[in-house]
Amino acid sequence: MKILLIGATGTIGQEVQQRLADGHEVIPVGFKNGVYQVDLESKASIQHLFEQAGNVDAVISTAGAAAFAPLKELTDAQFELGWNNKLMGQVNLLRVGRSYIKEGGVVLLTSGMLASDPIPGSASVSAVNGALNSFVKAASIELGDELRVNAISPVFVKETMEIMGMDSSSGMSAANTAIAYQVALEGQMTGAVIDVRDYV
Amino acid sequence: MKILLIGATGTIGQEVQQRLADGHEVIPVGFKNGVYQVDLESKASIQHLFEQAGNVDAVISTAGAAAFAPLKELTDAQFELGWNNKLMGQVNLLRVGRSYIKEGGVVLLTSGMLASDPIPGSASVSAVNGALNSFVKAASIELGDELRVNAISPVFVKETMEIMGMDSSSGMSAANTAIAYQVALEGQMTGAVIDVRDYV
Repeated sequence: MKILLIGATGTIGQEVQQRLADGHEVIPVGFKNGVYQVDLESKASIQHLFEQAGNVDAVISTAGAAAFAPLKELTDAQFELGWNNKLMGQVNLLRVGRSYIKEGGVVLLTSGMLASDPIPGSASVSAVNGALNSFVKAASIELGDELRVNAISPVFVKETMEIMGMDSSSGMSAANTAIAYQVALEGQMTGAVIDVRDYV
Repeated sequence: MKILLIGATGTIGQEVQQRLADGHEVIPVGFKNGVYQVDLESKASIQHLFEQAGNVDAVISTAGAAAFAPLKELTDAQFELGWNNKLMGQVNLLRVGRSYIKEGGVVLLTSGMLASDPIPGSASVSAVNGALNSFVKAASIELGDELRVNAISPVFVKETMEIMGMDSSSGMSAANTAIAYQVALEGQMTGAVIDVRDYV
């Protein structure tokens, strides 16, 4: 499959790219790096990305920014970052991308376990992830045979936790996290929220 | 309890007001009617509402706009309506309201069953509801004893379905829907997504 991988230079994205490299043509996309660049907050930038890349079989997003902070300190701008970037940016990958994705293709977005298992500071991120999970369920029933859409829900990534000085024992390696993306890419599921822990 | 009821003139709101009238002091708030008015899309308007109303024991929201339309036809403006009004408007009732709600008080927001049981046309509404459900879970773990927060998740309201010319046999009357708000108001739950079908 010809796959547009948005977030290819990120911790999870790198492992997804490596894991899929064998059987697929993966086109890495980043904010600053990659074969193409995209700013998820800009629908025009997403449109430009697909105009450059042309038709593809799949779009995988391991990208999207949202802010962690205590609820009392979360600013309006931090909430807006989550709605405009991780949430609407990924929603727009589907909305814009469906004109470029071949019949029967697939879109994989990234939400996260904080939708159902929050931690202090995750109010905005949890809301964004919950929105993405419900969005793919709803979108899938309208997309029918046109294309599949799923949300991959990672747990904390060990490598990220280590960089942040956290105890990483509860985390999952980016390499193991990438497995769920391959399963969802090559499988038949649609409208699913895919917990990465189910595939390791 | 002294309760600020936002959306008091709506189909569900009217029944919540009537149901709570006996044991509580309910202050009705609407967009155009009510004792006070508020525009959920404006944080300044929410701030002004609480400055007028002063301290309360509870805030109940049965308000919030979001757009139904086929995914292919949903405009950017329609998605933004959902994020800015039903989602961020209700999030802001908690963010702004917590300075005015007495210790041990409660905030009840309204999401809806479309978070988990979508229908064609509900992509934006489902996302908004999913976000609200995850938000209250996350917010509750930071609020601790300060105040409780729950999301009430209604099914389609019979009266609304009839106005829209839909078959209302699968719906629930607004009066029955209101029961869950009273249970959540007077109970001890926090961080819960309360399915109205559990209380009829």
